[in-house]
Amino acid sequence: MDPVALASALADDTALVSVMHANNEIGTVQPIEELARIAHARGAVFHTDAVQSVGKIPVNVRTLGVDLLSLSAHKFNGPKGAGALWIKRGTRVTATMTGGKHERSRRAGTENVPGIAGLGHAARLAVAKLPGEAARLSALRNGLEEAILARVPGTAINGVREPRVPNTTNISFEAVEAESLLIALDLEGVAVSTGSACSSGTLEPSHVLRAMGLPSPRTQNSIRLSLGAGNTQAEVDFVVSKLPALVEKLRSLTGARVRA
Amino acid sequence: MDPVALASALADDTALVSVMHANNEIGTVQPIEELARIAHARGAVFHTDAVQSVGKIPVNVRTLGVDLLSLSAHKFNGPKGAGALWIKRGTRVTATMTGGKHERSRRAGTENVPGIAGLGHAARLAVAKLPGEAARLSALRNGLEEAILARVPGTAINGVREPRVPNTTNISFEAVEAESLLIALDLEGVAVSTGSACSSGTLEPSHVLRAMGLPSPRTQNSIRLSLGAGNTQAEVDFVVSKLPALVEKLRSLTGARVRA
Repeated sequence: MDPVALASALADDTALVSVMHANNEIGTVQPIEELARIAHARGAVFHTDAVQSVGKIPVNVRTLGVDLLSLSAHKFNGPKGAGALWIKRGTRVTATMTGGKHERSRRAGTENVPGIAGLGHAARLAVAKLPGEAARLSALRNGLEEAILARVPGTAINGVREPRVPNTTNISFEAVEAESLLIALDLEGVAVSTGSACSSGTLEPSHVLRAMGLPSPRTQNSIRLSLGAGNTQAEVDFVVSKLPALVEKLRSLTGARVRA
Repeated sequence: MDPVALASALADDTALVSVMHANNEIGTVQPIEELARIAHARGAVFHTDAVQSVGKIPVNVRTLGVDLLSLSAHKFNGPKGAGALWIKRGTRVTATMTGGKHERSRRAGTENVPGIAGLGHAARLAVAKLPGEAARLSALRNGLEEAILARVPGTAINGVREPRVPNTTNISFEAVEAESLLIALDLEGVAVSTGSACSSGTLEPSHVLRAMGLPSPRTQNSIRLSLGAGNTQAEVDFVVSKLPALVEKLRSLTGARVRA
């Protein structure tokens, strides 16, 4: 995100600016510290959605300079169903779920205590493992990317290479319908996605890739590959071994020709 | 709830009527079938909160004749953090959590799959065990009530005896501060409450007991005892054995005299 674009978008009555720390589809890490400074200079509260970054890169609310930060346990191998909103002291928030006085009247409803405890424990483990795990995932992801770009003609990475979270890559395959490639990989036991899980089942091209200005065919030719705690070099090698033939077959079905 | 009171409260523009199936503090079961008929006759949608009744008494959305019914897994020994809203086909609902298209755009957010599966399994178990468990809890609860009323002077049940869910009783102890009795029982390892968990920590008298028209001292002299899957006759006997002396002691501290 361009800081100059944020500065020019702000008005005197802008109450809140919310920017993802890391994008879920392409992994790009946004310059939150700078964006928060710009928002604060105009009197706006700054929120970041750190769901994709916690456990992948260092996340420190003070370094980032944000007022609000949200995270989700299942994104760092904690239990599904639990998340957290960090609120800087003094930030005014209004409850969206009202009723009982749980969580200081900020979120009504019986607390999911096992989920909350699991989130806390998973966060401690994620922080302890972060340096080693980030390096491991980064090496796997970069090797996966390089091998695909080298072996499959007509491929390109969507988005910047750095700064990115270490586990995500989004690659376009010229003249290949992403949904067909997803299904072909699924039949080989490899799970990839064509956008966010939130919009799975829709045939709309990714709003992220469109917002980046990618041309129309490329937005429909792109898949996201994400790596996690359980993934290994052997699995990366398996994907790399399968992809060239799968892509070639899909292209031959439509008679597409792609320059090597 | 008095059906006549509901009928006279309804207006032509009443959109929604929401009534608890069973009250959480006193256990009273409301005449939902009749109330739903009255609401429907005036064109209002009818919702019932069945959080307290599922697993305690038979709950059938068709028999009840409701349009919407909510329930919570942890109330029938399922996992915390999962609940369900049953929606009769054709009922118009608006999402309160928006964003992703999860749950047909009715509730955005990654689904808590283990919680949802756990809710389903707990519901199956609860339905299978219902007849036996309801009879068991009812016998325990009635025995507990009768013993307390017989052995502790100045006690009375709050609310009707029937229809009630089988596991709940709410009893007033004349001239005893409920919070003091709660603490005294807690020190004996017995967990009771002075209202709902949603309002624990507040010193306000129960809004349920006030709405029932109980006089002011009695609303502050009442505790709720709830029984569940893990409770036994031996535990009921333990509570009954401890209560008379605890109540006597608390009364003596304030110099209160209660007629036997």
